[in-house]
Amino acid sequence: MKNRKLLMIPGPVEFTPEVLAAMGLPTTSHVAPNFIEVFGQALERLREVFLFPGSQPFVVAGSGTLAMDMAAANLIEPGDRALVVSTGYFGDRFAAILERYGAQVTVVQPPAVGDAPPPEAVAAALRQGPYKLMTVTHVDTSTAVIADVPTLAGLGQEHGALVVVDGVCSVGGEELHPPEWGVDVVLTASQKALGVPPGLAILLAGPRAMEAFRRRKTPVQNYYADWANWLPIMEAYEARKAAYFGTPPVNLIWALNVSLGQILEEGLEARFARHRHLSDAFKAAMDAIGLSQVPVSRYRAAHTLTAPYYPEGIDARLLGLIGQAGAIVAGGLHPAIRDRYFRVGHMGAVAPSDILTTVGAIEWALARSGYRFDVGAGLAAAGRVLAG
Amino acid sequence: MKNRKLLMIPGPVEFTPEVLAAMGLPTTSHVAPNFIEVFGQALERLREVFLFPGSQPFVVAGSGTLAMDMAAANLIEPGDRALVVSTGYFGDRFAAILERYGAQVTVVQPPAVGDAPPPEAVAAALRQGPYKLMTVTHVDTSTAVIADVPTLAGLGQEHGALVVVDGVCSVGGEELHPPEWGVDVVLTASQKALGVPPGLAILLAGPRAMEAFRRRKTPVQNYYADWANWLPIMEAYEARKAAYFGTPPVNLIWALNVSLGQILEEGLEARFARHRHLSDAFKAAMDAIGLSQVPVSRYRAAHTLTAPYYPEGIDARLLGLIGQAGAIVAGGLHPAIRDRYFRVGHMGAVAPSDILTTVGAIEWALARSGYRFDVGAGLAAAGRVLAG
Repeated sequence: MKNRKLLMIPGPVEFTPEVLAAMGLPTTSHVAPNFIEVFGQALERLREVFLFPGSQPFVVAGSGTLAMDMAAANLIEPGDRALVVSTGYFGDRFAAILERYGAQVTVVQPPAVGDAPPPEAVAAALRQGPYKLMTVTHVDTSTAVIADVPTLAGLGQEHGALVVVDGVCSVGGEELHPPEWGVDVVLTASQKALGVPPGLAILLAGPRAMEAFRRRKTPVQNYYADWANWLPIMEAYEARKAAYFGTPPVNLIWALNVSLGQILEEGLEARFARHRHLSDAFKAAMDAIGLSQVPVSRYRAAHTLTAPYYPEGIDARLLGLIGQAGAIVAGGLHPAIRDRYFRVGHMGAVAPSDILTTVGAIEWALARSGYRFDVGAGLAAAGRVLAG
Repeated sequence: MKNRKLLMIPGPVEFTPEVLAAMGLPTTSHVAPNFIEVFGQALERLREVFLFPGSQPFVVAGSGTLAMDMAAANLIEPGDRALVVSTGYFGDRFAAILERYGAQVTVVQPPAVGDAPPPEAVAAALRQGPYKLMTVTHVDTSTAVIADVPTLAGLGQEHGALVVVDGVCSVGGEELHPPEWGVDVVLTASQKALGVPPGLAILLAGPRAMEAFRRRKTPVQNYYADWANWLPIMEAYEARKAAYFGTPPVNLIWALNVSLGQILEEGLEARFARHRHLSDAFKAAMDAIGLSQVPVSRYRAAHTLTAPYYPEGIDARLLGLIGQAGAIVAGGLHPAIRDRYFRVGHMGAVAPSDILTTVGAIEWALARSGYRFDVGAGLAAAGRVLAG
């Protein structure tokens, strides 16, 4: 029997064979013509995949946290006011990062874990502005809550704030239309719905954000994250010229370009629809098994991951059993409920078979744990959605 | 005929098949038991490979510049004085990074490009101290100059400065004994003599450096580089426990652990000797062909790369011809002489055959360029050293 376990955490996820093959290619020079072409093409494709024409892409070795750090370090000057719309752990982290660069931060918290701040609360906060910048976590990986970006970004723009969307758990999986929605910066990491192993911080900045950066009066407090160091490099590679600031992670960028090509081949609309479809199937299975979810309503639930609560009497030991049954899923992350729920990522190259494997593994583990339920009901529910 | 070109730039370099295979493995969870073991083992092995017992390793997604940034951001508070011993472009970059965090920086420049500041000049500067921190670039990749780290670090320690060694182009290839020489921090990047594709910033901090970090009065101005975020993560993985701050670059860390295992299997002394031997062979070939080198004397020349000047009448178009002949080498980087020289990396997994291939390609290209020399003399000189 094959015994490799399926990786169903909210990043890193399962990657395509073509992406993994690119990772393992002999590394070429970061200024070799074939790599310059690959990097340049990847930058162009990012604008297409992010649906963000006219934006300036940055691709830098780092984690998603570096992408958040880049947005804060380059756009905040000491004393600037910033508004954070929090839907979980990563909203709170953005507040901490902004404060590090001297921002006066106001956080709009949700009424409860699993909920999002209502637009009226955000509008009320914005009226207490002006704020230079507002952040929205599109999908908070800690709660699986999806924010209403079009409404919130529209409000932010209306009140003159730069709108920064943390798309770490959304870009490439959830619908996002930056210019149409009034978004100025979208950032993400490679290992989520973009389908590339971890190690790349990716950020696209629109014209208003670049203009705010150019108007800075104080130096960026973070050397490595400073756009002034990276902008000439990104422009050079896109113009198919060699340039050097820091050595780019050649293999990861090669893999990124392969994945971006696959995403464009699938088509963004088809990709968003696939994520919704597979998410619906998985969530239907959790409902049928009787597991409730962290997001307070289906309307607040992301399509890139699901965060089910453990049933009464079951704890994190369930994860080990799910692993034994062939699927690796993740534990809780939000401090308020960490030990009461788990997280399943279904994004990137995820296929119907992955959903069935994971639901089957969860059913097997729950049955082993003494939870009483209609075994098979989850698989049946998922199957009905998948066939629908 | 095989037509893959040999990568002989000063990083990224040629990697072993085992390292590349690890890069292409299906990515596992960053908190899966098998990855925790790999990351934990890599951290332990780093202490052995750096010959730096008692130090705290940090491995973070980023480039070598991030490793420099980490040292500066965590050890400098606004107003601190720092001394930079510069042997080229990367010494000057360290000065810029230190200034970003508020340091009052004094740079000791070499008497000429290709030389290093004499110890007396460094001692005189130190007497104008006290300095909180002193940096030495072990091998400056822009000039191929190797610094006299034991003497300089001893002086720094004697005057009470924390000694930070930029080992980006040295660690794993050049002899370095941090505790014995009085070095407090050693930093590097993955893609040089450690033999792993680019994308990892690696830094080992000794007890005096960690103590200085703990005594800080002001917050670290850089969120992503802040050791306070990473220290609990590194400690957890080494204790074989899961922890999360930013998603680690799983494939790169897996590859790092493979390469560290290969380095320890070869043995550090044997590895240093191999680097010296192959460097001697390559440099003997350049002498025989009649190309002078940027370092002003053999005593100042690194063993991980060679920086030959173009002969009279030859320019950077030579590099394209060398590439046609099968070896990719790098152009100049130091602003004062950029168009007058080129750079050849010979580190990591480099073998005698790579030296011969590269010398052969350079001879072929020089002959094509109309340079008059005793064709074959370089290969003969290299062969004599290799056989010696």
